[in-house]
Amino acid sequence: MTRVRIDLFSSLDGCTSAGGGAENPMGEDWGPLTAAYVATRTMRERVFGDTSGAGTTGIDDAYAAAFFDGVGAEIMGAAMFGLHSHPDDPEWKGWWGDEPPFGCPVYVLTGTAPRPDIEMRGGTTFRFRNAPVEDVLAEATAAAAGLDVRVGGGIGTARAFVRAGLVDDLHVAIAPVVLDRGHRVWEDLRGLEQTHRMTTQVAESGTIHVTFTR
Amino acid sequence: MTRVRIDLFSSLDGCTSAGGGAENPMGEDWGPLTAAYVATRTMRERVFGDTSGAGTTGIDDAYAAAFFDGVGAEIMGAAMFGLHSHPDDPEWKGWWGDEPPFGCPVYVLTGTAPRPDIEMRGGTTFRFRNAPVEDVLAEATAAAAGLDVRVGGGIGTARAFVRAGLVDDLHVAIAPVVLDRGHRVWEDLRGLEQTHRMTTQVAESGTIHVTFTR
Repeated sequence: MTRVRIDLFSSLDGCTSAGGGAENPMGEDWGPLTAAYVATRTMRERVFGDTSGAGTTGIDDAYAAAFFDGVGAEIMGAAMFGLHSHPDDPEWKGWWGDEPPFGCPVYVLTGTAPRPDIEMRGGTTFRFRNAPVEDVLAEATAAAAGLDVRVGGGIGTARAFVRAGLVDDLHVAIAPVVLDRGHRVWEDLRGLEQTHRMTTQVAESGTIHVTFTR
Repeated sequence: MTRVRIDLFSSLDGCTSAGGGAENPMGEDWGPLTAAYVATRTMRERVFGDTSGAGTTGIDDAYAAAFFDGVGAEIMGAAMFGLHSHPDDPEWKGWWGDEPPFGCPVYVLTGTAPRPDIEMRGGTTFRFRNAPVEDVLAEATAAAAGLDVRVGGGIGTARAFVRAGLVDDLHVAIAPVVLDRGHRVWEDLRGLEQTHRMTTQVAESGTIHVTFTR
């Protein structure tokens, strides 16, 4: 049974990094927010190709492994794909190189005329859709063939899916830092604890893993 | 050695209840923020006079007991005492009845002409001061005679003390609710993790106890 999942990063004060444009797409606060994740053995291997076995193997690593497990299709906003940063480049293929780490169909939401599909190495296909989120989710769910659908981001896209009541599992990795700037992760999500059950686990790194499940 | 302590309540999204005026001074979101605390055996006994032994005895109760332990003087803002809600009542003695739960000198910061001291039952004396926070803290520290000084609130007063570098221990009980409104607990506190060490403990209630210590 397909579940719709989201994984987000937040500071203790509920902020996530605002992008810094094409030169620094994730913004300067992204590093502190994701430091504990980047340090895990799973992320080092899966994202950075480090097969030496280096990296942490505790609670953060368990969440990192779960992040990659069982996702059959991904949905992301136009900004996360980079369409806003590269509006005039019809050849733009995202930030992730020739072999993106998704390994599945990736549906890119766009408010403009959709581009043709882009087939990448490693099983990733970017598909551009200008359609209601419910319709794109239905298509992604069919493509996932029983595996899960992840809404990858950015934060506005993620919140839109949560607000629409489409998300089964929302995991937020809260880094032990106070940012006091950036986008607000929880904006417009008042009462989420009434539709989802919240569980919390604290990692060795100090990261607070909060999961809302229904 | 006196330490300067603060205990605050926050939602998961870093909000605390905005006051609702004289009729509902803590505001309507105060209940969900403090529900787990109110349920503890310590709070039931110390604040509500329930000596039946009822109430929770887990991690929340340990923090509730620590809340009362070793405080020799308290500092609070004028709004928390109720001066803003009752500006025309020279007989106003706070919200806590004839025997407030402080049991020590309580310094009330006021931007107006100080009122005379008010002696209450049970060892509480309200002392009104129109002076820089450093000066009031020095006086409170002397009065505490080796015990701790708590900055009781409200949130603006608490943040002013933290920003001024005057706070040794900041404990925030984060309730498992998303409020998306109210005062922002962490506003202007960017980088607090660089001056204080953060530790985290999750209670049975789902409350996340975060403590910044230096």
